[in-house]
Amino acid sequence: MQIETHTAKFTAPLYLESGRILEPYELSYETYGELNEAKDNVILVCHALTGSHHVAGLYDGDRKPGWWDGVIGTGKAIDTNEHFVICINVLGSCFGSTGPMSDAYPSLTPFRLRFPVITVKDMIRAQKYLLSSLGIHHLKAIVGGSLGGMQALQFAVDYPNFADKIIALATTYATRPWTIAFNKVAMEAIRRDVRFDNGNYAKDEFVDNGMDGLAIGRIAGHISYLSPDSMDDKFGRNYVSTDGLFELFGRYEVERYMEYNTNNFARTFDPMSYLYLAKAVNTFNLARGYDSLYDAILRIKAETHLIGFEGDNLFFPKEMEHIANMMNRNGQSHSYTEIESSYGHDAFLVEIDKFEYIIRKALS
Amino acid sequence: MQIETHTAKFTAPLYLESGRILEPYELSYETYGELNEAKDNVILVCHALTGSHHVAGLYDGDRKPGWWDGVIGTGKAIDTNEHFVICINVLGSCFGSTGPMSDAYPSLTPFRLRFPVITVKDMIRAQKYLLSSLGIHHLKAIVGGSLGGMQALQFAVDYPNFADKIIALATTYATRPWTIAFNKVAMEAIRRDVRFDNGNYAKDEFVDNGMDGLAIGRIAGHISYLSPDSMDDKFGRNYVSTDGLFELFGRYEVERYMEYNTNNFARTFDPMSYLYLAKAVNTFNLARGYDSLYDAILRIKAETHLIGFEGDNLFFPKEMEHIANMMNRNGQSHSYTEIESSYGHDAFLVEIDKFEYIIRKALS
Repeated sequence: MQIETHTAKFTAPLYLESGRILEPYELSYETYGELNEAKDNVILVCHALTGSHHVAGLYDGDRKPGWWDGVIGTGKAIDTNEHFVICINVLGSCFGSTGPMSDAYPSLTPFRLRFPVITVKDMIRAQKYLLSSLGIHHLKAIVGGSLGGMQALQFAVDYPNFADKIIALATTYATRPWTIAFNKVAMEAIRRDVRFDNGNYAKDEFVDNGMDGLAIGRIAGHISYLSPDSMDDKFGRNYVSTDGLFELFGRYEVERYMEYNTNNFARTFDPMSYLYLAKAVNTFNLARGYDSLYDAILRIKAETHLIGFEGDNLFFPKEMEHIANMMNRNGQSHSYTEIESSYGHDAFLVEIDKFEYIIRKALS
Repeated sequence: MQIETHTAKFTAPLYLESGRILEPYELSYETYGELNEAKDNVILVCHALTGSHHVAGLYDGDRKPGWWDGVIGTGKAIDTNEHFVICINVLGSCFGSTGPMSDAYPSLTPFRLRFPVITVKDMIRAQKYLLSSLGIHHLKAIVGGSLGGMQALQFAVDYPNFADKIIALATTYATRPWTIAFNKVAMEAIRRDVRFDNGNYAKDEFVDNGMDGLAIGRIAGHISYLSPDSMDDKFGRNYVSTDGLFELFGRYEVERYMEYNTNNFARTFDPMSYLYLAKAVNTFNLARGYDSLYDAILRIKAETHLIGFEGDNLFFPKEMEHIANMMNRNGQSHSYTEIESSYGHDAFLVEIDKFEYIIRKALS
């Protein structure tokens, strides 16, 4: 599988939903497989909040491949022998695309909290410009989970003729207060972190020790990605060391898991990007800009495949079913599948065996 | 209704489950109604993590009555014309009973992090001594929700002949990792709060401004007390001010709710007590000290009424049903009712209309 990583620079202004303008801006992206001459074998994969454009394959020296390596590659559900796959780091993220810690042109200092709020609508508009710059004006499919699924659906609504097919997993039509509340833990924990210093931390302040605020907020994130039953299976009431049961900070296995994962995460992800991407999730609402959700959904022309996960506690399957019901009423071409899983929201990343047949069939 | 508030001092050592000893210790408690001559009209009410012994009635100058005022009083489900009701502030709390910020006798300085871990077993043993000191050696009933329900069940298992009836709401047989993870957010947020200063904050440091760590952790608490559907009803996607949608820290109503409630809470509750009581919830396991959960449950002789709430996301109804199933198999006298509610865990505090008939009937 041929992998290429690029960063594209745009000097034309990007008019944001907020009324603000981003100019210039950059987008990092990765491609897999080969673009055919007709440029009609393109599949866009959209990543989730903490994801990056590194979806598949191994970088030199890495032990872990990209985040959806099980789905994308030679002979896999998204077959790179046949398709040219592209994933673009979203605006606001911290993996190469323009975000809050990028320099605010023409100054040589970062935007920090002066960075404009980015919405899912903004993210996909920028991605569309990038694709145009590559001469790609039509996609075979757009695929994504969670925030990636929001992008896929927003593409389908805003640009109905742009893609033949949409595959959206573990996502919703509009973020509910339950999920906004989970994000609130992280946003407050980051904002109140002394080292965050109202956004004025040194650029790599978090790399060595990880910022406490992001680590704390990330615990709430991990809760929302798992489910009560998956935690039973994974951790039970096991104790890290039995003699610690009566120590105040003695740890259950689930506590050790949270510490380990969140401390590591806080060393690799920029807290400012986390704030902006959480905000993008919060503001996501397919209905915005249209008369109603119904009107928004009615615009969709792509064959749409919706995949929900039974135990998802962040974006509940019934939210995707709600979209399916509307499309059904309108006779729009779609499928909805609820996958049995106790993995919670994370299922779209880890239970690939259970849903890859849907992607494979949809693309065949 | 006659209300009295007292603090009792005990000089005999309390042998804790951890092997450590608390000596001396104090317990604050409140009583409602009158103790009859036979001392056989006593109902013990047990409070939840952030509750206190002030269950019912109004203090002079207060606008809000005790936390279960709808249940306890003249003519109410727990009728104080008939019963003598007592509620005891649990060990480790911050409303008068001995806790981590109490002076470590004989010094005049607080225990702080040297305070021993307190378990539900410890809490109820201390309460039993207090009742004995009042000449009360048998109870008509023990009633409680959440951590209060844990105490009620632990009483039933550890002291099978002590109470005629047990009414436990919105609780469990052992805390699951899902709930431990929610507590982990608060415990880490408190522990990493610069002002917490490894437990060496001034005694009333939190009163003026509230400690950030507890406020942040409390957001996770509130999430676990509500449910996705109740948040939809309560907040929807409403915005506090519409022009803030594109401001990074512009707030949804659910965010304002979280800020308001958690900042207030952090000014009234001691963060150290929160740590110890969260630990007590985490270590709760009816099976501990017995061969198995089955053996523990089998010891129960009291007529046991279990009330679970459909939308409870902290202690799921199926956990209470699990107890009921065991009692059913053993032919132990019990009832289990699942109350339809979208209020989540908080339902035991706010949906009194829906379950008070069960308490009334059980006590009649």
